[in-house]
Order: sequence, then C-alpha cells, then structure tokens
Amino acid sequence: MHTIFPHGLYDKDRMKYGKVVATTLPFEQSIERVRELLREEGFGVLCDIDVAKTLHEKIHAEFRPYRILGACNPHFAHRALEEEPHLGLLLPCNVVVQELGGLTIVSAIDARALLGVIGSPELADLAEDVNARLERVLDRLAA
Amino acid sequence: MHTIFPHGLYDKDRMKYGKVVATTLPFEQSIERVRELLREEGFGVLCDIDVAKTLHEKIHAEFRPYRILGACNPHFAHRALEEEPHLGLLLPCNVVVQELGGLTIVSAIDARALLGVIGSPELADLAEDVNARLERVLDRLAA
Repeated sequence: MHTIFPHGLYDKDRMKYGKVVATTLPFEQSIERVRELLREEGFGVLCDIDVAKTLHEKIHAEFRPYRILGACNPHFAHRALEEEPHLGLLLPCNVVVQELGGLTIVSAIDARALLGVIGSPELADLAEDVNARLERVLDRLAA
Repeated sequence: MHTIFPHGLYDKDRMKYGKVVATTLPFEQSIERVRELLREEGFGVLCDIDVAKTLHEKIHAEFRPYRILGACNPHFAHRALEEEPHLGLLLPCNVVVQELGGLTIVSAIDARALLGVIGSPELADLAEDVNARLERVLDRLAA
C-alpha cells in the first residue's frame, strides 16, 4: 500500500504536520461525510477550494480531484484571536480530500504543529483540543 | 505607537510568522487595494472570510473588522502540490486585514515559516519567491 503514495503520503512517520486516513467512500461522498463529521465536532466549513477546477481555469493544468475545506470552530477561533491578533494568518484549519490510487485520501492539519510557528504556549491547550476533534473526524471517517 | 498593539501586533521583532504594515486607508478600501496588488503579483483570492460577521452569526460575539483573504498563485501552488501531496493543508497563503487603534493593519503570512513545518528543502525557493511577492504587496500598500 505504502509504495503507491509518493512523499510519505500514507506514511504516518513522515507526515509531520497532519493526520492522514484513506477511505473507500467515493470522493464527493467523502466530502459530504467530512462536512457532517466536522459539524458534529463543532466546526463549520468557511471555505471550500476546488483545487483541480481552479488550476484548470487559471493555468489550464490537469490535477487530480483535490478539495481544501477550511474548518473553523467559532469558539476556539474567538479565543485564539483574542490571544493572538495575527492568528487569522493561520486560520482556518484545513482538511484536504483528494483522490489517489483508487482511494479517497483525507488529511487534517496538525493544529499544534501549525501553532508551533507562533511559539505561543497559551495556545497549546487550544491546539490540543482542536487536534483531538479533527482526529475523531478522521477516525470515524476511516472506521 | 507600539504600545497600543497587544502581543507584538506591530512589533516586527516579535512577529515570527508574517509581515505587518499599517495603512491610513479605510478598512474596505484596504481590502480592495490588497486584492488589486495581489493580482498584480499573480495571486488570486480564493477565499475571503469575514471573521467579525462569522463570529457574530455563529456565537453572537462582537469582534473588530477582520478579514482573511486566502491568496494563491496557481503556478506556485501547482508546483508545490506536485512536490508535496498534502500541501493543501497549508494553502492558500493568507493576508489579514483588520481595523485596530484607528488604523488598518495588514499582515501576510511568512511562507517560509509556514513551509518550515513540512521540512522540505525543495520548497524553500518557492517560499522565498512567494514571500518576495507578498512583501512587495505590503510595501506598496504602506507606501
């Protein structure tokens, strides 16, 4: 299984800034399921970028089905923005759904790794809580 | 000037993950100007999150005018995604426009700091190029 994924796509030891799961659900259905699971964990989807469509429209490049969902829990975002005025530079927390090797691969950002660039210990607990929720989303998706 | 900004909002030495400028342009006008300058540097705006509106709608919180513009240069994004399948977790590159202390404060993510979480030397040159462009946008805005 691992060998079909370039650059550690499915290699948890090499993936340093997020969590990755594979699902046999079709691509579009995975997106709906991810949205539903995010909602159950208190996240809204504030943006939904269709990368393949965008690359096709802008530079006529062909790319595999690839969507970026920008997830945001408003309570967490509010607390974090009160703490750190520029935090919007790192929001929302992305979940990527892509089609590869006949599977749908879903990944979620590691909020702790992301907030590591700020170097704010005050935000570490918040990042842990976000990570626990995103991890549940991916675990339930793969179950 | 510095003291009115909490948490190093305007303290370049403390801002480790982006660049910050202030402008006397009004908030909405700044957003239009940022979009125009981004376009001139080859970036489209793929998402535009009105944080104040979102927080008000979702949790009835009051927040200062605060917008997150998700900027993307399709050529760079394509190259980076070919190199690193999960890079979408860190896209697009955000520019934040916020109103504070009677000024409009504009910040842009440091793509190099952001890509630091991946630890991929292959992407360092790309990150430098993105940073140079975002820096020109902010310099021209503040000029």
